[in-house]
Amino acid sequence: MGAVKTKRMPRAVREQQMLDAAVRIFGQRGYMAASMDEIAELAGVSKPLVYLYLNSKEDLFTACIRREAGALTEAVRAGVRAGLPADRQLWDGLQAFFAHTAEHPDGWSVLHLQARTHGENFAAEVTAMREEIVAFVTQLIAVAAREAHRDPDLPEREVAGLAEALVGAAESLAAWANATPGVTARQAAATLMNFAWAGLGNLMKGSPWTPPAGEV
Amino acid sequence: MGAVKTKRMPRAVREQQMLDAAVRIFGQRGYMAASMDEIAELAGVSKPLVYLYLNSKEDLFTACIRREAGALTEAVRAGVRAGLPADRQLWDGLQAFFAHTAEHPDGWSVLHLQARTHGENFAAEVTAMREEIVAFVTQLIAVAAREAHRDPDLPEREVAGLAEALVGAAESLAAWANATPGVTARQAAATLMNFAWAGLGNLMKGSPWTPPAGEV
Repeated sequence: MGAVKTKRMPRAVREQQMLDAAVRIFGQRGYMAASMDEIAELAGVSKPLVYLYLNSKEDLFTACIRREAGALTEAVRAGVRAGLPADRQLWDGLQAFFAHTAEHPDGWSVLHLQARTHGENFAAEVTAMREEIVAFVTQLIAVAAREAHRDPDLPEREVAGLAEALVGAAESLAAWANATPGVTARQAAATLMNFAWAGLGNLMKGSPWTPPAGEV
Repeated sequence: MGAVKTKRMPRAVREQQMLDAAVRIFGQRGYMAASMDEIAELAGVSKPLVYLYLNSKEDLFTACIRREAGALTEAVRAGVRAGLPADRQLWDGLQAFFAHTAEHPDGWSVLHLQARTHGENFAAEVTAMREEIVAFVTQLIAVAAREAHRDPDLPEREVAGLAEALVGAAESLAAWANATPGVTARQAAATLMNFAWAGLGNLMKGSPWTPPAGEV
């Protein structure tokens, strides 16, 4: 049966269907509870064909993580146009991020939750994507600091810390937005922009928050 | 041998020694690679005694998560005094949080990394702690918004989103600070305060960030 079907449909297309089904099942059931039977059924193929193409549950899950990580990174990059003011780039990037995670809740569950809760190998795949996004945000903040003139030499370490804070806040908000009925991607992006930009913006203008007077 | 030792030392004390050793080994080696032999050796007890007291590697790990989660939550609560202005409470709370995670890097690794990468039961333990901290921060922001008068009715959902963003940023920064030589707890707290407070502060004064003019 599988042989007949694979003749009619290119392997690459069928693999994507298997990954679509796997992301849905992994995202909704969790990695442990997900069954290869259910994934094959949802993909409309036989279970042996899934094993033939993707080898094992572990390899199938790894393929899901890589595809979803690539799609998310690509969506954020595609949302941002270089040359615009930094706050506009950040706003566009955040909107792209929250729109993508809202449209792909199972993919986001795989990346943010499942991949990080089922062993170090899977977690390392997500870490690589995260480092790419942190580097992108770091660059954005560094450019914004230069634009603001006031503090062109915002210490590299401070910029790195701000990027880590921003990415952590975005991850946390995306999980919350997906779990909270009625919160739109645009609202989540605006909340984070409110939280982050007024703060970052003041910092770059040389108006940092200052500790209470008299504190040692 | 174990029997002689337990006579000399109360069970509660010996259990804490086992947990101290287990947190160190789990934090440094990772859950999978950690061996009960190594934990028993570091605790200065026999392996059978560890199993007698803590039952299994899973139960020992769960006991570590609960103890470390309780200690972190307690440290943050103890650092904050009610009645002070909201930004002071947040600054004190952040300093307590980053000081605790810096002083207990293995405990933080158990909570932030290990507990979340090795199965849903362990992850659920951390989720419970996280919800308690988010509730605490949500309350802090709600009080601050009332203090600022300008926007006493900052929507509940916006406050909840801001609290999620702040906690996600703090988690991310703590992991970064512990992995980056030379970053002190106070610097990490100041970076997040800069990032968060100037933003939150403006928001509460009724000066939110506004989307670019002309955007749909």
